[in-house]
Amino acid sequence: MKRILFLNPIHTNIFNQPYLEILKQYKNKETEIEVTSLEGVGPKHLEYTCYEAIAMPNIVKKVKEAENAGFDGMVIGCFYDTALRAAREVSQNMMITAPAESSLHIGATLGESISIIVGQRKWIPEMQENVSHYGYTNKVTSFKSVNLGVHEFQKDLTETKKRIMQASKEAIKKDGADVIILGCTAEFGMYGELQEELGIPVIDSGLAAFKYAELLTEMKGKMNWSHSKRIGYQSPLLEENFV
Amino acid sequence: MKRILFLNPIHTNIFNQPYLEILKQYKNKETEIEVTSLEGVGPKHLEYTCYEAIAMPNIVKKVKEAENAGFDGMVIGCFYDTALRAAREVSQNMMITAPAESSLHIGATLGESISIIVGQRKWIPEMQENVSHYGYTNKVTSFKSVNLGVHEFQKDLTETKKRIMQASKEAIKKDGADVIILGCTAEFGMYGELQEELGIPVIDSGLAAFKYAELLTEMKGKMNWSHSKRIGYQSPLLEENFV
Amino acid sequence: MKRILFLNPIHTNIFNQPYLEILKQYKNKETEIEVTSLEGVGPKHLEYTCYEAIAMPNIVKKVKEAENAGFDGMVIGCFYDTALRAAREVSQNMMITAPAESSLHIGATLGESISIIVGQRKWIPEMQENVSHYGYTNKVTSFKSVNLGVHEFQKDLTETKKRIMQASKEAIKKDGADVIILGCTAEFGMYGELQEELGIPVIDSGLAAFKYAELLTEMKGKMNWSHSKRIGYQSPLLEENFV
Amino acid sequence: MKRILFLNPIHTNIFNQPYLEILKQYKNKETEIEVTSLEGVGPKHLEYTCYEAIAMPNIVKKVKEAENAGFDGMVIGCFYDTALRAAREVSQNMMITAPAESSLHIGATLGESISIIVGQRKWIPEMQENVSHYGYTNKVTSFKSVNLGVHEFQKDLTETKKRIMQASKEAIKKDGADVIILGCTAEFGMYGELQEELGIPVIDSGLAAFKYAELLTEMKGKMNWSHSKRIGYQSPLLEENFV
Amino acid sequence: MKRILFLNPIHTNIFNQPYLEILKQYKNKETEIEVTSLEGVGPKHLEYTCYEAIAMPNIVKKVKEAENAGFDGMVIGCFYDTALRAAREVSQNMMITAPAESSLHIGATLGESISIIVGQRKWIPEMQENVSHYGYTNKVTSFKSVNLGVHEFQKDLTETKKRIMQASKEAIKKDGADVIILGCTAEFGMYGELQEELGIPVIDSGLAAFKYAELLTEMKGKMNWSHSKRIGYQSPLLEENFV
Amino acid sequence: MKRILFLNPIHTNIFNQPYLEILKQYKNKETEIEVTSLEGVGPKHLEYTCYEAIAMPNIVKKVKEAENAGFDGMVIGCFYDTALRAAREVSQNMMITAPAESSLHIGATLGESISIIVGQRKWIPEMQENVSHYGYTNKVTSFKSVNLGVHEFQKDLTETKKRIMQASKEAIKKDGADVIILGCTAEFGMYGELQEELGIPVIDSGLAAFKYAELLTEMKGKMNWSHSKRIGYQSPLLEENFV
Repeated sequence: MKRILFLNPIHTNIFNQPYLEILKQYKNKETEIEVTSLEGVGPKHLEYTCYEAIAMPNIVKKVKEAENAGFDGMVIGCFYDTALRAAREVSQNMMITAPAESSLHIGATLGESISIIVGQRKWIPEMQENVSHYGYTNKVTSFKSVNLGVHEFQKDLTETKKRIMQASKEAIKKDGADVIILGCTAEFGMYGELQEELGIPVIDSGLAAFKYAELLTEMKGKMNWSHSKRIGYQSPLLEENFV
Repeated sequence: MKRILFLNPIHTNIFNQPYLEILKQYKNKETEIEVTSLEGVGPKHLEYTCYEAIAMPNIVKKVKEAENAGFDGMVIGCFYDTALRAAREVSQNMMITAPAESSLHIGATLGESISIIVGQRKWIPEMQENVSHYGYTNKVTSFKSVNLGVHEFQKDLTETKKRIMQASKEAIKKDGADVIILGCTAEFGMYGELQEELGIPVIDSGLAAFKYAELLTEMKGKMNWSHSKRIGYQSPLLEENFV
Repeated sequence: MKRILFLNPIHTNIFNQPYLEILKQYKNKETEIEVTSLEGVGPKHLEYTCYEAIAMPNIVKKVKEAENAGFDGMVIGCFYDTALRAAREVSQNMMITAPAESSLHIGATLGESISIIVGQRKWIPEMQENVSHYGYTNKVTSFKSVNLGVHEFQKDLTETKKRIMQASKEAIKKDGADVIILGCTAEFGMYGELQEELGIPVIDSGLAAFKYAELLTEMKGKMNWSHSKRIGYQSPLLEENFV
Repeated sequence: MKRILFLNPIHTNIFNQPYLEILKQYKNKETEIEVTSLEGVGPKHLEYTCYEAIAMPNIVKKVKEAENAGFDGMVIGCFYDTALRAAREVSQNMMITAPAESSLHIGATLGESISIIVGQRKWIPEMQENVSHYGYTNKVTSFKSVNLGVHEFQKDLTETKKRIMQASKEAIKKDGADVIILGCTAEFGMYGELQEELGIPVIDSGLAAFKYAELLTEMKGKMNWSHSKRIGYQSPLLEENFV
Repeated sequence: MKRILFLNPIHTNIFNQPYLEILKQYKNKETEIEVTSLEGVGPKHLEYTCYEAIAMPNIVKKVKEAENAGFDGMVIGCFYDTALRAAREVSQNMMITAPAESSLHIGATLGESISIIVGQRKWIPEMQENVSHYGYTNKVTSFKSVNLGVHEFQKDLTETKKRIMQASKEAIKKDGADVIILGCTAEFGMYGELQEELGIPVIDSGLAAFKYAELLTEMKGKMNWSHSKRIGYQSPLLEENFV
Repeated sequence: MKRILFLNPIHTNIFNQPYLEILKQYKNKETEIEVTSLEGVGPKHLEYTCYEAIAMPNIVKKVKEAENAGFDGMVIGCFYDTALRAAREVSQNMMITAPAESSLHIGATLGESISIIVGQRKWIPEMQENVSHYGYTNKVTSFKSVNLGVHEFQKDLTETKKRIMQASKEAIKKDGADVIILGCTAEFGMYGELQEELGIPVIDSGLAAFKYAELLTEMKGKMNWSHSKRIGYQSPLLEENFV
């Protein structure tokens, strides 16, 4: 049995229950899943890098708590992959995944040319920086903005799906995309329908990060492949006691 | 239950039994595993690109047969990832993985700087081409050759491990590697011991490709994320009947 | 006198005679040219990577035969540059060229921005991988598909030329191309007319590979510059006897 | 008169006084300089990404305060360039600089090949990610670690300078560096001596960021060239009130 | 007091007086500015690389003269950054800047995505080569040509501004630019108006190179950061006496 | 019959006679070869970029003269490929080649990993810039300096060959080179001996540029593939009369 924590790294629990229901549907038998979000007052979305900055200590704290509570894996549920390196540093044994990294690794095995559907144009530079850091500059053919904020995706599902469909069709036709990634974890609950109509894989990035967490925790258990503590993910000294 | 076929794409069954035993040890409960190799006369290793060329039609044929036999996933067990795009074209529903692609995707989540331990310097240009194609040029800090052919790795295990250990230590010290990938599927059965002594993850690339196949087949079953048939992995027309 | 073999790596001789006539027209006095194709049953075009896989052993065999027959150079006449590294491994002294590599090397001396006119969008990912491998990512400004299969190019020449002309004009106007490469060896016999109307160089890629083969064989003869047998193009051991 | 705030983004004021004295020595007549650090309990250095995560909200708060207090420019004094995009988002009119970005921009006009002298090998992956993001992958020929923590640089200056000198000489000889960047703001007060002995420019990165802040604030005043608020540095809505 | 020479590297003084007036407006109190151009008969613009070639010895001579005349810095006022490395070689102590390099360094601190507005499409390949050399390939999202020669920009200012405005709006909308660089020093005197209407920074590249020269000369004076004479900018031997 | 002019772009005829003898030995029957150098007083070598700057107008003038004199092709005989774009602009019909471009195109068909043997470390940055511009960053594994100036290579041939041999052996062993390029046209007359001893191709770059010129002029004659006059190599207006 592997215990995985899915963190919505925002100061609202509004997505927790729906995410729990979805993840239960897709989890392995051996997985025990919990969904949580950040407590207290703070940003309810991370559309700005400075909101990520504000949420970061709480994310790091959650990593520490989750590890202490015996979780085997944790998902940081934002497509900016907020604080991913920090979380891997803090974690001693727990495996950490995040949506952009996971969905790019998966998408790159499904097709040759990926388009990422985001909410706002403003998100693109930071996401592009991540795409480049992960090595997918040549595989990501385009970003498409549907002009919706994080909390608008679930408001009018018909409108949301219409816009994503339209953006995806343009990505296929003009940019030669053969895989679509939904570039916000709030675009949940719709990949299936989109995929069926488009005829190509549509990756729900929250789901991708969750399944990747299952893979990594399973391999940690069986092969002891874990985040390397030698260089980039080296943990701080316990006695410094800042985390 | 998911059925996965591990193909040693060489004309000898010498590695089939040992691989079967290893994979059984690491597989999911829901996985049914078979190991096979190529029949008839042909190259017993693929150290040369021209040997890959000779083996390719048989690999493609194996893909077709495996899919007809109802397999859900297939691993092409050579670190050159021989015929990977061809196999994904041929396959209609079966998921295909290969060692270099899978171990790079996994390694990149475990550390920030990867060294690949190969048998011969001759292998490096083709592997580097793959590393570049997969987007990992900046993450792969070095290739190290231990000067052993495919069929020498298992001959004198003490010597083999000594050489890989030495190459890995140099990779850590000089190149700043924090993850090691064993760049030949014939380097099986030794990652654990190496890993324990080195203190950083050592990825057995055959095992990585197998676990990745489990992930992809599971996701195919649950989310219907499959190799995109739109562009790069588009299948040939059945009526042409060449595959 | 240098003997060069032009191989149409497909299981049909349909292009052999027309290619022979063209090459004779453009050859050096010192060149003796033969055109051949693959015997037996097999793919009549290589639009799919898996068709390349099927044809590969026969291509490798042709290389061996050609060398034994005393040819000085050989052209692998498909814009995927099928089995190029394999062929250079197998060859001991014979020089090998292929259309994409040759026409990119030539095109890059003629202009600063190249557009490649292909038959199908499906071909682009593999070709782009080659462009990147050869180092021309920044010089190739676009691929344009004219939506024709290999065996359709010569069917209705007026229609074919109309489509290529239109795609080229768009490449010039929108993408800033100042050189056009015809990205399929079946687009033969039309570069001249296109070039005259477009006012920029239009490279027939089969012809380019042939002239490049003349250059390489001549330099082999005079300077002994040959495919390096040290690393990437190292030949397999004769006693293994698989090639 | 331009007012610039230099922030040591750590929870100790230990570097404030020395930095103030140095900056006063190098400032323009028209510049008014203040140096501050983070208040309260928290990391006293940012050697770990997770320490950056913990410090980030306080950095963002400092940006807001500084702008409200009428500063024209602000320097984030850590070579990780911690929270640089976040700070530029938050700022409405104040110009923000940081050591890595500034010293790379300057260094690239002084020579053709830069080596960065860091304290610990652990720092390199995040710094390399920044180097790549800023576009200097090809100009930065090496990172050299002198195996000193942030708070060790100023402990034994003779030893520190000896190690940096040795690392720099190796960078010049082996890597062909013709510019050295001191890759930690705690390596202050020593560039001059090193530079004189080495005979090539040695850039104090804190100083570089400060002089760059003077340039940007002056240009903001004269030409109104300011951080673009259109896409990547777009500010959050005031009414959300999280910053 | 720092003395800076702005060179219009063309054989006409037509831009000298207007540039002098502009630079006086934007200079530091401590800067003494002169503007000059090339004497004698020669190209009146550098739209062709071969015109740059013809002007080069005169530029190099101007560098020598300026240094002998005691200038602290010099700007080569053409967006091709003509002879920049040569000038830095020749100079012993004088700091050299040029428009493309300076405006890219500045632009990259103001936004995340830059579009460069040029006069003719013909200019783009050489400029793109420079952008790549400086490391800004990923930051420069597009070049836009307004179809005006160097000496047409100042002819009909209303028309010029209209065209640049239109190109900039397209760059913002289609290419996601959040910073505009005016890619010719003859586009002077208009950045302010454009900037106000567009709402994003518009960089006058001549002005940028001048302000950068002020920064570099100031830092040379205070920190002795100078062009490194070790490798790339190594000066020729005086006794050879060719410069 | 094709007439090709080989230009030693230096103000000394010292290499003309030896080059003429060598080129005669390697030329096609149909080629008529002349060798020339720059007249008058000026740099006798181009080791500095500023010497290239000084020589450039004379090179451009030579291009014009050569074309007027009916030459079909011209080689600019310096491994910096001095004024290559300028020369191609100026030329209306004559084909222009240069050593670095030609030997990289040829070398990349002979092996997978190239090392360039240069005279001085100072030369490397500009050559590396060219390597990058031509797209060979990944193929050129190293530059090796033998610490000899242009006019020292032919002084003591035994010493020169010894140094190049040693540098090449290190390139093979440490850097994995399987092709050597002699990165200065003054390293003439020695490739054969080196090649025989090293067992891998050693490319004389002056010779490479000459054979490439033969190829391009032949193709110009037969296929009318010529430098594209549309964008980058667009010729200046005749009436401007500066060239």
